[in-house]
Amino acid sequence: MNVDEKYFSNITSRERAIFEGAISMGALFHQFVGTPVNKNTKEGLEKSMEDSLKLQPAIEDVEVKIRFDKLEESMTEFDYTSLNGDMLDVRIYTKVENVKAVIRIEFIEELNYPLMYVENIED
Amino acid sequence: MNVDEKYFSNITSRERAIFEGAISMGALFHQFVGTPVNKNTKEGLEKSMEDSLKLQPAIEDVEVKIRFDKLEESMTEFDYTSLNGDMLDVRIYTKVENVKAVIRIEFIEELNYPLMYVENIED
Amino acid sequence: MNVDEKYFSNITSRERAIFEGAISMGALFHQFVGTPVNKNTKEGLEKSMEDSLKLQPAIEDVEVKIRFDKLEESMTEFDYTSLNGDMLDVRIYTKVENVKAVIRIEFIEELNYPLMYVENIED
Amino acid sequence: MNVDEKYFSNITSRERAIFEGAISMGALFHQFVGTPVNKNTKEGLEKSMEDSLKLQPAIEDVEVKIRFDKLEESMTEFDYTSLNGDMLDVRIYTKVENVKAVIRIEFIEELNYPLMYVENIED
Repeated sequence: MNVDEKYFSNITSRERAIFEGAISMGALFHQFVGTPVNKNTKEGLEKSMEDSLKLQPAIEDVEVKIRFDKLEESMTEFDYTSLNGDMLDVRIYTKVENVKAVIRIEFIEELNYPLMYVENIED
Repeated sequence: MNVDEKYFSNITSRERAIFEGAISMGALFHQFVGTPVNKNTKEGLEKSMEDSLKLQPAIEDVEVKIRFDKLEESMTEFDYTSLNGDMLDVRIYTKVENVKAVIRIEFIEELNYPLMYVENIED
Repeated sequence: MNVDEKYFSNITSRERAIFEGAISMGALFHQFVGTPVNKNTKEGLEKSMEDSLKLQPAIEDVEVKIRFDKLEESMTEFDYTSLNGDMLDVRIYTKVENVKAVIRIEFIEELNYPLMYVENIED
Repeated sequence: MNVDEKYFSNITSRERAIFEGAISMGALFHQFVGTPVNKNTKEGLEKSMEDSLKLQPAIEDVEVKIRFDKLEESMTEFDYTSLNGDMLDVRIYTKVENVKAVIRIEFIEELNYPLMYVENIED
């Protein structure tokens, strides 16, 4: 089966670059939020999140940064906390044909919300 | 702050309708896969998944169907199983300005994969 | 196969009542943290969490209360937020032979931590 | 506050070793099931699961093995799959005072179920 032809011929390459990156960003957030983390495991967890999401279709690269300030803010008596969305600063890079998109999540203070948006797209 | 103007003026309404639906579909999958479920709780879980995801930006409606055949296939000695992606048959309806999109996930036998794609989009 | 005899004869009924409740409490937390929620969907989500966890072995009842004050504290510009551990006030009731246990999670201000503990156990 | 005295004086060290290991096993399952994985990321994911769960109270060590046969069984056209419970072969080692416990999850063919049980406990 030609998956692209059968399921994706109704959208442009630009739209698909956005589509695939958005799926992976929603996936990343809801898969990993809740994971126990502290400053010692932060880096390993970032790497594991990156490697997991890079497996999904059209994903070229993933850069995960768990914000240290937000991590410390929610630190508990037990020297670890649960990963939450406010800690996430992530860029997912997708490529479909000649189109490259960057999907971003970052915490926006004014909205008290970790916003996902298309940071860049070019063809 | 005008969020739309600041963060979304670089993409079209059509692209944003796809973007928001794709995020919510990735979210739904990775949030709920693993949940204990059987035929008695199936309907309640479907409703809860729908209501949760309808809260996200630009989502007009969500229809979740947990496939009974796939549920039964993975049934255990303990009369329940864990929700997995193959059981999911979901449509997420988004609306951005005059554009309406339907994002779908369904298990495709030939790919052995629960595929997410844009089932319909119109402006 | 006699599961109890083969896998659980090395622990007492009291220990198993604790064991099964603790599994389900860990499960509940890590399954549902991250779920989109607001005051309108709070009750439905509580019910769905209860019904899902009641399926697990030895669970007699589950009472989930999502704390409204904590929910409001983390409310965003978009009229919903993600469920986090600090919002959880949950009791899981288990029964193994003649032993009944209550496993509890509640946020403890002094620890800045949602603590899981055995609230009551009797034989 | 003396947490142990206030919240855990109603159970024995043996019971608490079981309690803490069971929480972490429930947590591990429901946190990580759904994660994209293939043979290349398997090892990194195992490590990340181990390191995350080792942060929780009373956990001395965690050994995660993602079963390669089960991984291959559910492999898709896209060269990755979602982690499911049947793939998990995990031991969590806890220590409370002089008591050491090993909590295990492994897939039991006869039950079609990834069973969690106390593999060993000694004081």
